[in-house]
Amino acid sequence: MGVSWVDSYFEKKYPILSKSSTKTSQHVAAAPDTSSKSTLTDLTPQPSTTERAISASGRPIYSRGEVAQHNSLETGIWVTYVDGVYDISKFVTIHPGGERILLAAGHAIDPFWAVFSVHATPETRELLENYRIGDLMPRAEDSTAQDIESHSKGIELLFINEPERHPSLQVRSARPCNAEAHPDSLATFVTPNELFFVRNHLPVPNVDPELFRLQIEGPGIPDDYSLSIDELKTKFTHVSETVTLQCAGNRRKEMHDVRPVKGLQWQGGAISNTVWTGVRLRDVLADAGYQLPDFTLPNYAEDITHVQFDGVEGYGASIPIEKAVDPRGDVLLAFEMNGEPIPRDHGFPLRAVVPGHVAARSVKWVGKITLSDEESQSHWQQHDYKGFSPSSTLETSDYSKSNSIQELPIQSAILYPRAGDEICANDDDEVIVKGYALSGGGRHIYRVDVSADDGKTWRDAELVQMDKKPYGRQWAWTQWEAKLPAEWVSERAQEGKVTFVCKAIDSSYNSQPETFESIYNARGVLVGAWSRVQANFKSK
Amino acid sequence: MGVSWVDSYFEKKYPILSKSSTKTSQHVAAAPDTSSKSTLTDLTPQPSTTERAISASGRPIYSRGEVAQHNSLETGIWVTYVDGVYDISKFVTIHPGGERILLAAGHAIDPFWAVFSVHATPETRELLENYRIGDLMPRAEDSTAQDIESHSKGIELLFINEPERHPSLQVRSARPCNAEAHPDSLATFVTPNELFFVRNHLPVPNVDPELFRLQIEGPGIPDDYSLSIDELKTKFTHVSETVTLQCAGNRRKEMHDVRPVKGLQWQGGAISNTVWTGVRLRDVLADAGYQLPDFTLPNYAEDITHVQFDGVEGYGASIPIEKAVDPRGDVLLAFEMNGEPIPRDHGFPLRAVVPGHVAARSVKWVGKITLSDEESQSHWQQHDYKGFSPSSTLETSDYSKSNSIQELPIQSAILYPRAGDEICANDDDEVIVKGYALSGGGRHIYRVDVSADDGKTWRDAELVQMDKKPYGRQWAWTQWEAKLPAEWVSERAQEGKVTFVCKAIDSSYNSQPETFESIYNARGVLVGAWSRVQANFKSK
Repeated sequence: MGVSWVDSYFEKKYPILSKSSTKTSQHVAAAPDTSSKSTLTDLTPQPSTTERAISASGRPIYSRGEVAQHNSLETGIWVTYVDGVYDISKFVTIHPGGERILLAAGHAIDPFWAVFSVHATPETRELLENYRIGDLMPRAEDSTAQDIESHSKGIELLFINEPERHPSLQVRSARPCNAEAHPDSLATFVTPNELFFVRNHLPVPNVDPELFRLQIEGPGIPDDYSLSIDELKTKFTHVSETVTLQCAGNRRKEMHDVRPVKGLQWQGGAISNTVWTGVRLRDVLADAGYQLPDFTLPNYAEDITHVQFDGVEGYGASIPIEKAVDPRGDVLLAFEMNGEPIPRDHGFPLRAVVPGHVAARSVKWVGKITLSDEESQSHWQQHDYKGFSPSSTLETSDYSKSNSIQELPIQSAILYPRAGDEICANDDDEVIVKGYALSGGGRHIYRVDVSADDGKTWRDAELVQMDKKPYGRQWAWTQWEAKLPAEWVSERAQEGKVTFVCKAIDSSYNSQPETFESIYNARGVLVGAWSRVQANFKSK
Repeated sequence: MGVSWVDSYFEKKYPILSKSSTKTSQHVAAAPDTSSKSTLTDLTPQPSTTERAISASGRPIYSRGEVAQHNSLETGIWVTYVDGVYDISKFVTIHPGGERILLAAGHAIDPFWAVFSVHATPETRELLENYRIGDLMPRAEDSTAQDIESHSKGIELLFINEPERHPSLQVRSARPCNAEAHPDSLATFVTPNELFFVRNHLPVPNVDPELFRLQIEGPGIPDDYSLSIDELKTKFTHVSETVTLQCAGNRRKEMHDVRPVKGLQWQGGAISNTVWTGVRLRDVLADAGYQLPDFTLPNYAEDITHVQFDGVEGYGASIPIEKAVDPRGDVLLAFEMNGEPIPRDHGFPLRAVVPGHVAARSVKWVGKITLSDEESQSHWQQHDYKGFSPSSTLETSDYSKSNSIQELPIQSAILYPRAGDEICANDDDEVIVKGYALSGGGRHIYRVDVSADDGKTWRDAELVQMDKKPYGRQWAWTQWEAKLPAEWVSERAQEGKVTFVCKAIDSSYNSQPETFESIYNARGVLVGAWSRVQANFKSK
């Protein structure tokens, strides 16, 4: 294990890069050396058992201490998962994720699978079951459990290279980092970089921009076509677009509070808006040798229907070719965020920015682009980020029959007041309610309606800040503010409480559904019901 | 009045056409001669009053018989409106609608204004008030009222040239003809021409296709640019698109039943789907001399932002330039409907077809296209077909502050069963529920959810027929069918009644709002709440 797993992982994933020069195998900077025996083998010895216990299922039972001793090719590589013990020695060389698997050697793989959610399929579990050699001793009976757990540092090593984050971010999961923007950060039109919400599916890669090359693959594109960041910057026209990115699960907690869903408990802050600068994806694809389709022809794109993005850290997603090359689509390969190099948390040195679509398609650290006749086969495109009926459960949701989320539906949320706030009228005898509104597909916000009686009567909010963009290219959110007459609010208060509601209407006159029940889905995505906030109202 | 008003009207409206040849003044075939004195002046004489009564407002009071005698330039042209009497002799020559105004000479203009809704503005009423000479005698006191009313044939003459219509069409207003498709007609994917819903704002013009020329005006386009139907057919590539057209007020009656709205009481049949064949608007505009914009450039369309369509009968509307010339927009100038010349009711000989937008923009009998930096200034673009908040009334709705409806929101409706039907399970122990679903902007239908308990629990419907179209170009509706287990339905029946609900989800994951209250607007447009049908369920 003298070779850093990070290098090795990327050699496997990007063989073209690693072949072209020895330097490019360091494309991603090396993670700390994880091969030290003191880290992986300094275990409390387990007393040997002369007679091995057998479980009810007829398999031998192993303690955590015994498993921990099998952590090298000499001893065999064992891991545990839930209540199973597996000898994966023969699997290490064919593991799609490369030698990263060795970080779990002798330990539980459960925490790794929680991070690398690509494993969450019946097929992967079945594959693992082929390597089963026994059952794991119940924790209560396992005298070695406490010592062993405290030595399982593998998962932490994956995240030792994370960037620093602003303390105002509200962390929903530490590893990988998922943290939403503070409500105060959302009340300005452009979100400062350090206050932008963080949504990471995997550890943040540490990419050396000097060594980085973007690969592009597809019919008609030369095998060795790739671009350095410098080449991208010098060969193509620079374009800046103000684009709001929103996570598919933004506001999930509100749905969860009505009926439980799976996923990070985002409140309304898995959304932010910044100016992205980069080059047009369509320009780059054309330069690579792809003939931009004439959309007036039938069968214009028989062999290429999707553009796939692969992040160097392992994430992947795709978008339809129609969006990818639309002159009005404004899909960018961005290297700047608010005029600065994109911070590591947001995709340094290069990020796909797909305006009007769910943020999950704006792939960070994008290292490879593939023109294909199929969607990305990544876990996140195929088995996540899809919608289902309120009557589907996590178990009955058939991902093969649902469609990937691309354009987002109409959305809005109240930022002020917050639930439980004490509010009263200002000097103009008005009560101020503020928030954001956004629609997918470049649709403009036409109106935001605000209620102070849970949706019985409404007032139009003022759209106080939005981009002036042409029809169908409103990629940024709209900031709105309702100045409600205090008397009007007071008449609607009940026992000192007022329930404010907002709903937005976009340029297709789509409006938000009233309740979370009606759009419930067990994964908790597409959470666009009316935003409701109950505050305490004090008459003057 | 020897000249047919129809000729005269179109001479005024299309001076270029009438100047270029004497023939083109017959561009629209002549309506029957309406100048016969026997029609307009055969009136019961009114006994003269020696002392004229004065109304409370200080104006002289006239009977209907007296007004009727002022029906020519010799006697002066008088008309009545509500309770006013007006001498419009000096206005006739400057009336924007030309001599058509003479059809009302000596009579009430109220029925004309009900048809020509362009008059329904405060400005028009104010203008009329300038010509006021007195007050109309209250009907109860007016001994001439009965005779006069029976002679007011003017309004009928406007509609003497209407085409025949299929008896299955459900008429919501006779003049102009507005008739919805029978529910049975909507259950097939392609609607036969004669069963297609009819939505006319004005009398149907009778256009001579040999004389017809499409005019195109705008910067860079030669003054005399025009095309005959033959030229259109021979110069440009023919394109066929299956496009569903839906009236902005489809399903209005369901909203009206919850809270009254203004407008035709459409049920779910102001929608139909056919194959339109024609040429691409973008091809024609390019041929006319318009430089198609490069949408990747900033300020690509500073001087041209809208394409206006004028129907030869007086209707007008516009669409954004982005839609008009988008290679993926599929905007057609159509001359065929289901492989036959477009029937008169649907726009013969030429109709704009704007897929994905409200049908009101697919202008029939289109005779002029104008490239402009503003929307159509027509009544229907400026003072109709816009959305408002549920708290706006007809009086408080400020049309200058709302936006024209273009792309439609997500929609679906149950076609079977119908309200009050007796239903029971079929031989497979299933209850069948059927309907249609459609979204605007080319968005596909991803799912239709069907409930048998008013929305508490759901089943996925099967999408049984839809066009296989590329991303963002689903212009036709989707036919769906839910096969609900009889036991599941039976468990949800209450006292023998079942409330079925459907809601559709489109490719932006927009879903329909639950109630009409939440999207109520006083004009009754954009009526896309859940479709609910209560039927009587009999267990076997």
